[in-house]
Amino acid sequence: MTEHGDEMYALVERLYPLCRSITGDGVRATLEIVGEYVPLKVHEVPTGTQVLDWTVPQEWNIRDAYIADPAGNRVVDFRASSLHVLGYSVPVSATMPLAELREHLHTLPDHPAWVPYRTSYYQPQWGFCLAQETLDALPDGEYEVCVDSTLTDGHLTYAEHIVPGQIADEVIVSCHVCHPSLANDNMAGVAVATFLARALAEQTPYYTYRFIFAPGTIGAITWLARNAERIDRVKHGLVLACAGDRGHLTYKQSRRGDAEIDRVMRHVLAASERPHRVAEFTPYGYDERQFCSPGFDLGVGSLTRTPYAGYPEYHTSADNLDFVSPEAMADTLAVCREAFAVLDRDRRYLNLSPYGEPQLGRRGLYDSLGGRSDAKQAQMAMLWVLNLSDGEHSLLDVAERSGLPFDTVADAAGALHGAGLIKA
Amino acid sequence: MTEHGDEMYALVERLYPLCRSITGDGVRATLEIVGEYVPLKVHEVPTGTQVLDWTVPQEWNIRDAYIADPAGNRVVDFRASSLHVLGYSVPVSATMPLAELREHLHTLPDHPAWVPYRTSYYQPQWGFCLAQETLDALPDGEYEVCVDSTLTDGHLTYAEHIVPGQIADEVIVSCHVCHPSLANDNMAGVAVATFLARALAEQTPYYTYRFIFAPGTIGAITWLARNAERIDRVKHGLVLACAGDRGHLTYKQSRRGDAEIDRVMRHVLAASERPHRVAEFTPYGYDERQFCSPGFDLGVGSLTRTPYAGYPEYHTSADNLDFVSPEAMADTLAVCREAFAVLDRDRRYLNLSPYGEPQLGRRGLYDSLGGRSDAKQAQMAMLWVLNLSDGEHSLLDVAERSGLPFDTVADAAGALHGAGLIKA
Amino acid sequence: MTEHGDEMYALVERLYPLCRSITGDGVRATLEIVGEYVPLKVHEVPTGTQVLDWTVPQEWNIRDAYIADPAGNRVVDFRASSLHVLGYSVPVSATMPLAELREHLHTLPDHPAWVPYRTSYYQPQWGFCLAQETLDALPDGEYEVCVDSTLTDGHLTYAEHIVPGQIADEVIVSCHVCHPSLANDNMAGVAVATFLARALAEQTPYYTYRFIFAPGTIGAITWLARNAERIDRVKHGLVLACAGDRGHLTYKQSRRGDAEIDRVMRHVLAASERPHRVAEFTPYGYDERQFCSPGFDLGVGSLTRTPYAGYPEYHTSADNLDFVSPEAMADTLAVCREAFAVLDRDRRYLNLSPYGEPQLGRRGLYDSLGGRSDAKQAQMAMLWVLNLSDGEHSLLDVAERSGLPFDTVADAAGALHGAGLIKA
Repeated sequence: MTEHGDEMYALVERLYPLCRSITGDGVRATLEIVGEYVPLKVHEVPTGTQVLDWTVPQEWNIRDAYIADPAGNRVVDFRASSLHVLGYSVPVSATMPLAELREHLHTLPDHPAWVPYRTSYYQPQWGFCLAQETLDALPDGEYEVCVDSTLTDGHLTYAEHIVPGQIADEVIVSCHVCHPSLANDNMAGVAVATFLARALAEQTPYYTYRFIFAPGTIGAITWLARNAERIDRVKHGLVLACAGDRGHLTYKQSRRGDAEIDRVMRHVLAASERPHRVAEFTPYGYDERQFCSPGFDLGVGSLTRTPYAGYPEYHTSADNLDFVSPEAMADTLAVCREAFAVLDRDRRYLNLSPYGEPQLGRRGLYDSLGGRSDAKQAQMAMLWVLNLSDGEHSLLDVAERSGLPFDTVADAAGALHGAGLIKA
Repeated sequence: MTEHGDEMYALVERLYPLCRSITGDGVRATLEIVGEYVPLKVHEVPTGTQVLDWTVPQEWNIRDAYIADPAGNRVVDFRASSLHVLGYSVPVSATMPLAELREHLHTLPDHPAWVPYRTSYYQPQWGFCLAQETLDALPDGEYEVCVDSTLTDGHLTYAEHIVPGQIADEVIVSCHVCHPSLANDNMAGVAVATFLARALAEQTPYYTYRFIFAPGTIGAITWLARNAERIDRVKHGLVLACAGDRGHLTYKQSRRGDAEIDRVMRHVLAASERPHRVAEFTPYGYDERQFCSPGFDLGVGSLTRTPYAGYPEYHTSADNLDFVSPEAMADTLAVCREAFAVLDRDRRYLNLSPYGEPQLGRRGLYDSLGGRSDAKQAQMAMLWVLNLSDGEHSLLDVAERSGLPFDTVADAAGALHGAGLIKA
Repeated sequence: MTEHGDEMYALVERLYPLCRSITGDGVRATLEIVGEYVPLKVHEVPTGTQVLDWTVPQEWNIRDAYIADPAGNRVVDFRASSLHVLGYSVPVSATMPLAELREHLHTLPDHPAWVPYRTSYYQPQWGFCLAQETLDALPDGEYEVCVDSTLTDGHLTYAEHIVPGQIADEVIVSCHVCHPSLANDNMAGVAVATFLARALAEQTPYYTYRFIFAPGTIGAITWLARNAERIDRVKHGLVLACAGDRGHLTYKQSRRGDAEIDRVMRHVLAASERPHRVAEFTPYGYDERQFCSPGFDLGVGSLTRTPYAGYPEYHTSADNLDFVSPEAMADTLAVCREAFAVLDRDRRYLNLSPYGEPQLGRRGLYDSLGGRSDAKQAQMAMLWVLNLSDGEHSLLDVAERSGLPFDTVADAAGALHGAGLIKA
């Protein structure tokens, strides 16, 4: 199943070159493109706004940046890749010998052909990221350096998209939009989230699904700060990142470890027989750090393929368009849809006829011919739902305890509900 | 140990030929024979009585049934086996070609020599069960069919036998008496229950033991409906079925999974070192389905040898007198007695001298010679009972945590109780 | 690490020859020597004092004891080893044939060269312990027997040493001082306790540590009886015994099994990668029997090397000075210090900024350069402490869940506490 794989890949291709950061026009341009696929409500939060323990920083924008060698050739050029400039670099325009310049250069000696991704959001400095082999080839001499950036009072930008549900309780899907030219981290996550939103809207879901496209850390913190009043509506959530590499899926559990999203994801991944890994929560990684801080402690897990920092290409120029595939993104999307299909149907029912079994036969729900031992799965599912619908067990509990497929159990619950034998 | 094996087998031999169903004279004849072994209180519940979600059906009785071939030979004959007629078959007397007759015939193509057991309690129809090879040998032609049965307002019949105990709290032992000529399912269960009742009466047990001989499903539901007021006296229970085949014992746990009967059965089966299996509860099988429905949720498990539907002979003519053995029934009976011996002695005591150890030596309960490390088991059992008798732990807990035999622990508790050091 | 090994061994050498029992001058002499290392408060409790369910017995003292053969040679001589006399032997002075004498002799037929340790505290009798091979060599004839002992109203003697802490909550360390010439059981335990007390006093610990040197059973019961009012100050404890043999360490858990001392000991033993064993509580062994009786149910475990009765030399003359080693005692001491270092720092903190992560960077607690994935351990430890400091989790919980070393976690908590981000 590679549904929407090519479309998601095409979206990643468009978003990849933009120079994003935690603020600035790169984020706005990204959201504008996403907005062509799903309508977005874009929020602009002014510099200096207090958000929880943090303050919205100045807005950073950049037009150009380069290092020119003594001969005047651009040996490091922002126009070739947005990774070349240290994120949030302060402006600079100067000439200096290589030795002095070196203190502002970041490389990856272990991967000499790759350019690292580095930032300095909260301590003013300037710098460039480049391949070690580029650096090694630089002759001594005077170099011209230029970062044509601005750091000014402005805004932090994030966006939301809502898929309205039958109830106001919410599932949030969050993905960070602050990383520059890195394909897997996180344009693939953005693309999967976008197509997931479209898929969910095909029919009105039970929950209301809220998609959050925001810069990492400060964006999630800003969203939490501005939504404190309504945070108790958030029942479940998923942080999507690294959604397009060719590795196996990894679900990182919420801090609680037994939140419904954790159980649903474990169930769906196991039932699907995909190779996958379920990881314990750690307070590191993506914005599950914020959603799962102890004051909020939301039931929010994180779905990636190869997890955070789990591959050498992570946060380097090797996380490029070759590193992600349409098939991998389609697979991530498919699992999300399967999981939300379960989450959306999972309920606790109450058996209204809990003393003995109700007579299913006269309601047309049971075989009339007795003595056979090969009870149909649908019939077994009804008996299980009746037996466990004591207000303590959800349909997912029934599926796990009975070993029956969740859909069969949910269908059985539907039939019993239709016959007035159980209530939600 | 094959105690009472031959007697139980002889009882099965007498009961086996009778044509039982969920109502009718076959059940009455069965209970009459059982009543020769243990006194029974027989209950007759009128057709139409509302019992929980169900209604007591019409009473079914049958005198004869057969299929005669074009030459007038009885090729399928109820007098040869009560399995040949579809249970609750409506009367019929007709002549019809084989093609039309086929729609009323039930066979087992995978076991062509065996006759299946089939019923249609709640949807009026007539039918015959026969061996596939019998069917295959029938020539085309006109067949005479006759089911000389009646379906009339009457009664549902079940019986109880009580072994009075020291307290009014009850243990129920239930077995179904509705299956026709099937030996293991459930005449073996009936026989084991009968001899278990006799064994328990040898000395007054702690609990009151109530034996229920009733048709499956509707019988248990009827009993539950008529005993709703006193159901909270039922502390433990066991459904006995398939008690005589040569397979290993299987204990199917109650819905709760940690009811005392579950723990006792697990303990006794493990301690006895018999090969056995402990199975999780499922809402399918025998009348544990009703006792463990969520409204009642009784601590009732089920003991079988090879479990429900777990053998090819299940619900076929191959479940005959050769399929059960005296030794297997004796073994099932022995385990029931061992389990009830534990259940009957299991108590929570309270250490009346809980601060430090009481001085057992001056009460004659401890070796006077110190320094030896080979404390006797009885002495260790006393220390364990004292240490764990905090109101939270039962003697079974003590046995399991200490690794000591339950009897040693119970004897130690008796000695400590006699010395006034613990109270129940 | 063999710190203090030789000093502890030298202490064992001094204590070993003394004839100790549950009362008497041997205990006093033992405590006098220990008092040279750490100041002791010695308690004398009069004969006849009611202590819980027990009564302090008469005081036993002994000057000499021997068996002389027909030729007048001392063939069993108390002066050679205090084990030769049955502990609490009543006085005797008589001549009798070997046959009559035999009833008062204790040997170990399976270890013919070893002398057993035997006592009779609560039933008046006299006796001798000797090697089987000594007994086998005795010719028939008249033997002179002499036990020059006294049993008189006197006192039971025990001692305490306190290491004052920052809070009044206590950790108790208990070791029995009633065994005569047995090196591992328990002069090694006494020596380790003594040097542990000295080590703890090097800097004021968090808890107050109370060391109890008392005779087994009756001594612990006496201490408990006399400290009933303040027993709720005892938060944790350790019984030290068999601390010097060459076997692996064994930690026997408290009755609770999940007391903090249990978790700390398991953690420290596992983290240290020493071969070791963690054993379940049993109500047998040393004075954990009393501390863990159900009325007290203290969080007191027991640390030994080879456990109680777990070696053939146990309670025999083969538990001599060769059986214990400086290295083994040093290792036991080291583990105790590691464990108490953890216990002393383990706390539950409350994150004062629990909504989202606090901005560690502006407090100088976080790297300013972003994009790198190799977060330092100290930084990870801070994130973990913040995430789990919800009042439910202790630093040990954080260490175990994060897999980080306890010290790193505790240091991180210190830094966060210093920054005002968490409170105890």
